[in-house]
Amino acid sequence: MPSYTAPTKDMQFILHDVLNLPASGIDGFDELDRDFTGAILEEAGKIAGAVLAPLNQVGDQQGCSLENGVVRVPDGFQEAFDQMREGGWTGLDMPEQYGGQGMPHVLGTAVGEFFSAANQAFTMYQGLTHGAASAILAHGTDQQKDTFLPKMVSCEWTGTMNLTEPHCGTDLGLMRTKAEPQNDGSYKITGNKIFISSGEHEMADNIIHLVLAKIPGGPDGIKGVSLFIVPKFHVNEDGSLGARNGVSCGALEEKMGIHGNSTCVMNYDEATGYLLGEEHKGMRAMFTMMNEARLGVGMQGLAQADAAYQNAVDYARDRLQGRDVTGTKNPDGPADPIIVHPDVRRMLMDQKSFVEGARAFVLWGAMMIDRSHRTGDAAAEGMISLLTPIIKGFLTDEGYDMTVQAQQVYGGHGYIEEWGMSQFTRDARIAMIYEGANGVQALDLVGRKLAQDGGKHVMAFFEMVKNFCSENKEVEGMADFVEPLKKASKDLQTAGMFFMQNGMKNPNAALSGSSDFMHLFGHVCLGLMWGMMAKSSLAALAAGEGDAAFHETKLVTGRYYMARRLPATGLHLARIESGADTVMALDAAAF
Amino acid sequence: MPSYTAPTKDMQFILHDVLNLPASGIDGFDELDRDFTGAILEEAGKIAGAVLAPLNQVGDQQGCSLENGVVRVPDGFQEAFDQMREGGWTGLDMPEQYGGQGMPHVLGTAVGEFFSAANQAFTMYQGLTHGAASAILAHGTDQQKDTFLPKMVSCEWTGTMNLTEPHCGTDLGLMRTKAEPQNDGSYKITGNKIFISSGEHEMADNIIHLVLAKIPGGPDGIKGVSLFIVPKFHVNEDGSLGARNGVSCGALEEKMGIHGNSTCVMNYDEATGYLLGEEHKGMRAMFTMMNEARLGVGMQGLAQADAAYQNAVDYARDRLQGRDVTGTKNPDGPADPIIVHPDVRRMLMDQKSFVEGARAFVLWGAMMIDRSHRTGDAAAEGMISLLTPIIKGFLTDEGYDMTVQAQQVYGGHGYIEEWGMSQFTRDARIAMIYEGANGVQALDLVGRKLAQDGGKHVMAFFEMVKNFCSENKEVEGMADFVEPLKKASKDLQTAGMFFMQNGMKNPNAALSGSSDFMHLFGHVCLGLMWGMMAKSSLAALAAGEGDAAFHETKLVTGRYYMARRLPATGLHLARIESGADTVMALDAAAF
Repeated sequence: MPSYTAPTKDMQFILHDVLNLPASGIDGFDELDRDFTGAILEEAGKIAGAVLAPLNQVGDQQGCSLENGVVRVPDGFQEAFDQMREGGWTGLDMPEQYGGQGMPHVLGTAVGEFFSAANQAFTMYQGLTHGAASAILAHGTDQQKDTFLPKMVSCEWTGTMNLTEPHCGTDLGLMRTKAEPQNDGSYKITGNKIFISSGEHEMADNIIHLVLAKIPGGPDGIKGVSLFIVPKFHVNEDGSLGARNGVSCGALEEKMGIHGNSTCVMNYDEATGYLLGEEHKGMRAMFTMMNEARLGVGMQGLAQADAAYQNAVDYARDRLQGRDVTGTKNPDGPADPIIVHPDVRRMLMDQKSFVEGARAFVLWGAMMIDRSHRTGDAAAEGMISLLTPIIKGFLTDEGYDMTVQAQQVYGGHGYIEEWGMSQFTRDARIAMIYEGANGVQALDLVGRKLAQDGGKHVMAFFEMVKNFCSENKEVEGMADFVEPLKKASKDLQTAGMFFMQNGMKNPNAALSGSSDFMHLFGHVCLGLMWGMMAKSSLAALAAGEGDAAFHETKLVTGRYYMARRLPATGLHLARIESGADTVMALDAAAF
Repeated sequence: MPSYTAPTKDMQFILHDVLNLPASGIDGFDELDRDFTGAILEEAGKIAGAVLAPLNQVGDQQGCSLENGVVRVPDGFQEAFDQMREGGWTGLDMPEQYGGQGMPHVLGTAVGEFFSAANQAFTMYQGLTHGAASAILAHGTDQQKDTFLPKMVSCEWTGTMNLTEPHCGTDLGLMRTKAEPQNDGSYKITGNKIFISSGEHEMADNIIHLVLAKIPGGPDGIKGVSLFIVPKFHVNEDGSLGARNGVSCGALEEKMGIHGNSTCVMNYDEATGYLLGEEHKGMRAMFTMMNEARLGVGMQGLAQADAAYQNAVDYARDRLQGRDVTGTKNPDGPADPIIVHPDVRRMLMDQKSFVEGARAFVLWGAMMIDRSHRTGDAAAEGMISLLTPIIKGFLTDEGYDMTVQAQQVYGGHGYIEEWGMSQFTRDARIAMIYEGANGVQALDLVGRKLAQDGGKHVMAFFEMVKNFCSENKEVEGMADFVEPLKKASKDLQTAGMFFMQNGMKNPNAALSGSSDFMHLFGHVCLGLMWGMMAKSSLAALAAGEGDAAFHETKLVTGRYYMARRLPATGLHLARIESGADTVMALDAAAF
């Protein structure tokens, strides 16, 4: 069975050596010293490794079942969920006012990586609850907040997000679910939603569904969509639970992965719902949570990659096949461990350099969300808005590829379910799709975010990279990082210039390169992260501080990324510069 | 449910317009005119689309089961297998002497693509039989051939290949299965084999296992391995079946995909076996079939990609989401079909340009095998030996990626098993692993094939590309193909030069780039294929022959490959030139 060990040391390195949380000037961050975050990470790591990870394969093999409207989750999930609630892990970064611990988002994200890596399907039950609670926190009335948030922060009640319908996923303007206004101010919700994660189960006393629907007579399309709170059980004025509402699970989807999560078809039949936020402003309410939600999915990409990587390393150290071509390494054994073979190392280094770079990228982004929320910093808000589609799209595409590489390290055993490597790829696959398919992320990046606020955020990004390079180019040991980063950043600027010169005349000239641009940008971000990490490790080594072996390993891993992964920017640029001609030339019938 | 339509027109284009089979000068090829191959392809296409494809999802969902030693295959497999046997499809390219139809390998490969694309798990039952029969054909005594081949060519009896043991896959020298010589000239085989495809089932009256084992007292390691014929039921002198031999299926593996094929743990308990070929020369016997077998697996990579692509195209034409940014295409509908969106087209063009290029590559390779076998052409033998690891490794890596792209076109529906797109990726995944994991292919290419016969085959390849470029550079319309191909070929030569200059001092400097080299080489091959196809289409258009729309589409697709896929050679070269330093620097404990 695969195992998982939370990378607390690497997390601490990023939070303190690289991001230096306590000195960041963000409200409340001065308390986040190394011991404090270390204690939280240690405890979270324990529950991830000892409680959640052992249930990961169980969840995959058993899946969920539906009988007479009741959804059963895999063995052990209820007990683990109780432990997560009792430990207060469900409300770590929620306000103390509603029973949370008031920690910043960056810490919630760090802990969330452990939980997702250990058991993505399980962690989604609380993850969706967190998302729904955040929406109520941002847009609910005081009464709504008081009614729902304490129970949702503690996960006594869980939450869901209901967007997709059979005929509309990306294009939510086509939505058919209706919300008929009632005299008492509530609405009757009728329609069918699909792909509803954690849509039905009995691990919690109630489920609070957030449902997008159209109020008849409102504007057409996406501008006529409103958001509603629809509890599974009615909530009485005293907070006790009443009768069942008109919502039920019609079916469970058979999926490629995340079998432990109940992905439901939800039927709303005149269910009572309560408007959340303003009429017809449902999409706006969704969008306010989108940066966090998409960053969370990007984090899942690296989390699955790390879990798969850890097991691939163990296997490569244990499995004996063939001999090191430069000389036997295990003379007393029948063969050498396969980690001696360059191509096995290539796969492991691809994974390691991605995971560590991606981890820094996600935490850096989460810290921008904190800076924007806690200090009202508009520049941070703009920057994370720009980077969000990259974090989501790039990290889940690459994260998936890394789970495939990890599986490949196992040879034939990687294909056998017993070994667990197939599950990592099957679970990781969903992150490229949900919360906006990666093509939609690329469209958001190129079609909206680049030009947002007159393009000032992307200019700020270039400025930041430029400053990093000029500040560090003379620092000993940094040339391996600064030179490739400059080259990659130049590719990115050239691509942006191509879009400016060609996209106005022909939007397809830009959109044909959108996915490549997202990847190009992602590589530059990871290049910058590796530059920042290298700088910290070089400084620690020069000062004789910390674990020298850790920092030496960090530098090797970073050099690998710069030498072997970052040059992908040139390929993406070449594709972008080829424009739309060959992409758009064929009639639909000619494919 | 997904559907499959055999690409007979594209196949005919490659066989005749590009490869010009009848004029190739290969023995027996003069009979292969357009009508003849067309008739065979039409019939094969019908059975693939109407019989095999409808059982593909059934096979995935039901899988195989083992009860009291009896393996049950999915519903419908037996009837379909009977149809394949009755139609003579199992012996198409086997000698007439043993009941086959004596067709060339290139035609068997073309038909094999249809069958594999329609149902890979099913087609493996006859595919493994073909492989085992080929081994007997090449190395068996006359008596062995007469006893086994007629039944195996007709698939009245099926065959298997038994190589892997729990502790050894790639490194077969570690093998423990023993073959004790008996007085009557037979051997008693004892040991356990795993991952045995089609290892046990009741679709055929007998199963002929080819088993690698060690004769006690022989040389250590791989040089002491011999190959044995071990029938499930003993065969009497009159050809009738006798008692059960000492071989049984101990368990079925739970796999990520190809559920319809019975992947068995096989237990040999003093089973009677007959030496095939010479003592201790078992690996040599295996290697003679390897080019064909590996080419067949490379073909599976493109076959799954094509099946997935066809369905993705259908979905992209049907699914309505969003509007074309350059103007509505479906004004009467609620939205435009998603094929209008550039990023959806990018995914489809990636798939289309890969599939068609790969198809040409595989058929070109299969024809080299025919040339080598039928005319004893040593240059063809050397060239296909060089290209085999590329066909296997590159086409299965890329083919898998293309199934993932096809799945992505479906958005959330791609993750739901009902739609069938997940199965294409899960089935395609195995081809990167079996018949030598792709890292082993890359090692074979860089460690053996490049230097084979003093490097003359790789020099011949470069010469061929150079000649193609110089012959066609002035041809109108060919600049879009010749220029990128020259550039890519130069990258390949530079990489080869890097290996020559650095690999002698440090083998790891070459081996760290082996996988990148295989991909670089693969792209150059597909670039050459696209050049050859473009030349044919340009000639047909100039002459006003054939279907002009087909040829125009072919040219657009080729230009896409040259502009957007072929530039990957630069990235692979950059990685190769970064050498071994960052790949090999870490201690095994530091990962």
